[in-house]
Amino acid sequence: MAEAATRRRSRGGGGAARRAERTSISVETARYIERNIPNFEILNEEALEIIEANAETVLEEIGVNFVNNPGALALWKEAGASVDGERVRIPKGLARELCKTAPSQFTQHARNPEKNVEIGGRNLVLAPVYGPPFVRDVDGGRRYGTMEDFRKFVKLGHMSKWLHHSGGTVCEPTDVPVNKRHLDMLMAHMTLTDKPFMGSVTEASRAQDSVEMCEILFGKEFVHDNAVMTSLININSPLTFDDVMMGSLEVYAKAGQACIISPFIVGGAMAPVSVVGTLTQVLAEVLAGVAYSQLVRKGAPVIFGAFVTSIDMNSGAPTFGTPEASQVTYGAGQLARRLGLPFRSAGSFCGSKLPDAQAAYETANSLNMGLQSGVNFMLHSCGWLEGGLVASFEKFVMDADQLGALHKMAQGVAYDENAQAMDALREVGPGGHYLDCAHTHANYKEAFWRSELLDYKPFETWSEEGARDTMALAQARVKKLLDGYQQPQMDPAIYEALTAYVANKKASTKDSFS
Amino acid sequence: MAEAATRRRSRGGGGAARRAERTSISVETARYIERNIPNFEILNEEALEIIEANAETVLEEIGVNFVNNPGALALWKEAGASVDGERVRIPKGLARELCKTAPSQFTQHARNPEKNVEIGGRNLVLAPVYGPPFVRDVDGGRRYGTMEDFRKFVKLGHMSKWLHHSGGTVCEPTDVPVNKRHLDMLMAHMTLTDKPFMGSVTEASRAQDSVEMCEILFGKEFVHDNAVMTSLININSPLTFDDVMMGSLEVYAKAGQACIISPFIVGGAMAPVSVVGTLTQVLAEVLAGVAYSQLVRKGAPVIFGAFVTSIDMNSGAPTFGTPEASQVTYGAGQLARRLGLPFRSAGSFCGSKLPDAQAAYETANSLNMGLQSGVNFMLHSCGWLEGGLVASFEKFVMDADQLGALHKMAQGVAYDENAQAMDALREVGPGGHYLDCAHTHANYKEAFWRSELLDYKPFETWSEEGARDTMALAQARVKKLLDGYQQPQMDPAIYEALTAYVANKKASTKDSFS
Repeated sequence: MAEAATRRRSRGGGGAARRAERTSISVETARYIERNIPNFEILNEEALEIIEANAETVLEEIGVNFVNNPGALALWKEAGASVDGERVRIPKGLARELCKTAPSQFTQHARNPEKNVEIGGRNLVLAPVYGPPFVRDVDGGRRYGTMEDFRKFVKLGHMSKWLHHSGGTVCEPTDVPVNKRHLDMLMAHMTLTDKPFMGSVTEASRAQDSVEMCEILFGKEFVHDNAVMTSLININSPLTFDDVMMGSLEVYAKAGQACIISPFIVGGAMAPVSVVGTLTQVLAEVLAGVAYSQLVRKGAPVIFGAFVTSIDMNSGAPTFGTPEASQVTYGAGQLARRLGLPFRSAGSFCGSKLPDAQAAYETANSLNMGLQSGVNFMLHSCGWLEGGLVASFEKFVMDADQLGALHKMAQGVAYDENAQAMDALREVGPGGHYLDCAHTHANYKEAFWRSELLDYKPFETWSEEGARDTMALAQARVKKLLDGYQQPQMDPAIYEALTAYVANKKASTKDSFS
Repeated sequence: MAEAATRRRSRGGGGAARRAERTSISVETARYIERNIPNFEILNEEALEIIEANAETVLEEIGVNFVNNPGALALWKEAGASVDGERVRIPKGLARELCKTAPSQFTQHARNPEKNVEIGGRNLVLAPVYGPPFVRDVDGGRRYGTMEDFRKFVKLGHMSKWLHHSGGTVCEPTDVPVNKRHLDMLMAHMTLTDKPFMGSVTEASRAQDSVEMCEILFGKEFVHDNAVMTSLININSPLTFDDVMMGSLEVYAKAGQACIISPFIVGGAMAPVSVVGTLTQVLAEVLAGVAYSQLVRKGAPVIFGAFVTSIDMNSGAPTFGTPEASQVTYGAGQLARRLGLPFRSAGSFCGSKLPDAQAAYETANSLNMGLQSGVNFMLHSCGWLEGGLVASFEKFVMDADQLGALHKMAQGVAYDENAQAMDALREVGPGGHYLDCAHTHANYKEAFWRSELLDYKPFETWSEEGARDTMALAQARVKKLLDGYQQPQMDPAIYEALTAYVANKKASTKDSFS
């Protein structure tokens, strides 16, 4: 039921078929979600028009900074912006006009073509947590993440039916030098799973390495013609585009690779304390960022990003799963759709230190909001803990299980003759029960979403089995998934070429840990 | 921003003023929620019309049973239904026509008039868990509920800012005889809080006792003219109206007291395994039940109820916070609005045995769905555990805290000049921060919802303070609220009269525990 793509970017053909031969699916992965339910539209037309007009005023009167980036300033000047030092003031309408060449939907290819994802339209693609320096599990507690932890997360993601995407920095592998860890991370995503993944953004050269490794994995020509990575370009809100992130964006845009262009906002600190003020800034930032991507290369696939949360004004701590964050996200989804761009937001956000009730309340608030706000790409959809400082193994599988409920919810409500069930109502009648009627027998297998983690047992059975809480159930599930992990097959020649690339790169540079 | 009531039922005047003198507010209670956000409309017009037509077919062709209730059968016959034994077949259109005399909105009065609630329209009134035979807390584990537990829950409800309503059977006081416990429960609601409450429905005589006790509390004339109770009348789904519940409904309707008329459905057992099939049955049942209430007394205030959950088809256990339950609830809200009746559904539903992550995921799914589906009266909005078998003290305060987030979310998004925050955007500019700007200083206090329970502290502080999980935080909050409890004042003459009524009733009947 996905809407037809209007400016879709996708290829098929022999390359995909050949790659299919090189892989085999050993683990079930759900197809990305195609929504058959409405979006929740929290803003009326008047509010949307005010925000859009104010964002244009912000761009024209206040402007944005492109830091340490003479090339960007030159491009902006040529496009008709006013450039004053690093400040770029964009005449009303120009940024929105430039955004028009960005596709409204695109395919990100996986090495297993069955796991390609369509980003945009009414689709929702789910990717895991991104960026935490720490990891946590029941056995080891909270500690710095390592490459071994990273590989475990990629394996868990591979084994998670409801995750469509392997993500990027699922945790920081702090035991590998900063200037080399992107190579190991890419190698893990490329070899331990056949789901799509993200590239490095911590330096332009590392983005370039990501492109080159993809050229080995997918073939140079294929990468030239298709998006095989979606990478995360954060804006330094308010209104600042730094050279590191823009350097990576430039590499990816030139290579035709997809980027999320994403304001990073803790409301009250990086944006005003009001929802509409925050949305105005988010829209101005995205307009400038996406317009810039199109100045670098017309047609480069980009996503309207919005990482938005609120702040506890008492302590200054970021807070998650809050009503204000939801309101901003609903509004941002409306603005993204009016701009005709895919939308990234939401995730398994929580501030809790443990995968406990607080974590789950906050996360469920955020996941539901993500589905209903029309998010097309949900980074952080599982595993996020402690405001993003921690990637939690147990929470990864808890959240990943809840993602199954989003799939079912998104299917919407069938109302064909079978769904109307008038035969069942007639068969059972007053005072009967439906457990044994023909309609139930014909439909029960697909009728209800079923958790593979949560406890549905009678109290007595649950007690006899140790009265386990969700954390204990999740601990067991992490072990079960990792024990059952099967590495997807890969052409040995490609594996060797990737290994050699990584070894050469590592040998040619001194370690850096800062 | 509540919509104007079209067929509103409410009184003011001298009685209210007098009752205000008799009471004093010692504890803050939020006003009931007036939604300024849209409802989530999951069904399209075609699906809604199919369900409405099918429900009429169910009533006409299959019919409903009114069990052990010759009086009801006579009323139906007189109204034009076909009666065959206990089966009542209702010609198409008749039930919907009869429903038209029910008010679309009504006031339930509290003994403190500031705590009156408006049920219907765009409002949402929150009441606690109802019916569990067991209670649970961290100290005592799971055990049968007692009258002492009951009183503690009523006190917690009184102290909970976001609860508008004291509810009814917050737990079953199993240490009091079945035929007398309603007296003690009513006494607790009437004396330990000044919020509105529910009446007894376990026998017509107990409903009558409830009315008579209210006549002591509010004055006979006031009760004659105003709704002072909202009570829960469950339908024995499928399509069965038993004499106990109908007996109570008859008492309340004749006395002008409000009832929720509520199918009780575990999908797959008491209704078909499909969403639309379930909605068809729910609508047929509510149409018949509400129509019957109007046959008993035209204009009796009633609520379109829908207790709906799904079943785990592997084990037969009811499951909560599931996507199918949400879909049914969204659809039921649409049907209720088309029928012009207040809507009751949702709650802090979960299947978990503990107030852990499972409980919170399931509950948050259900609470969010409740807000967005347009629920007007949310029973079970806090404290529900283990499929409703258990009332949990810790979960009560956890959920009650989340209800604050619903209040903030429901306010919607302001977009006046202050909310647009253009002065803040101009003041801060690229690269700055908003913590100290004038707009933040002027707005920060009301800007963000703040939990009074959850942990927002830095990791180090949290660790030093014992690394408490949500359960431990909740345990402390239960103690804090109970320690701070202050009983609202009451006219001693009324207190004595109530005490005497209860004593007389108890003395005149033998104890019964079944």
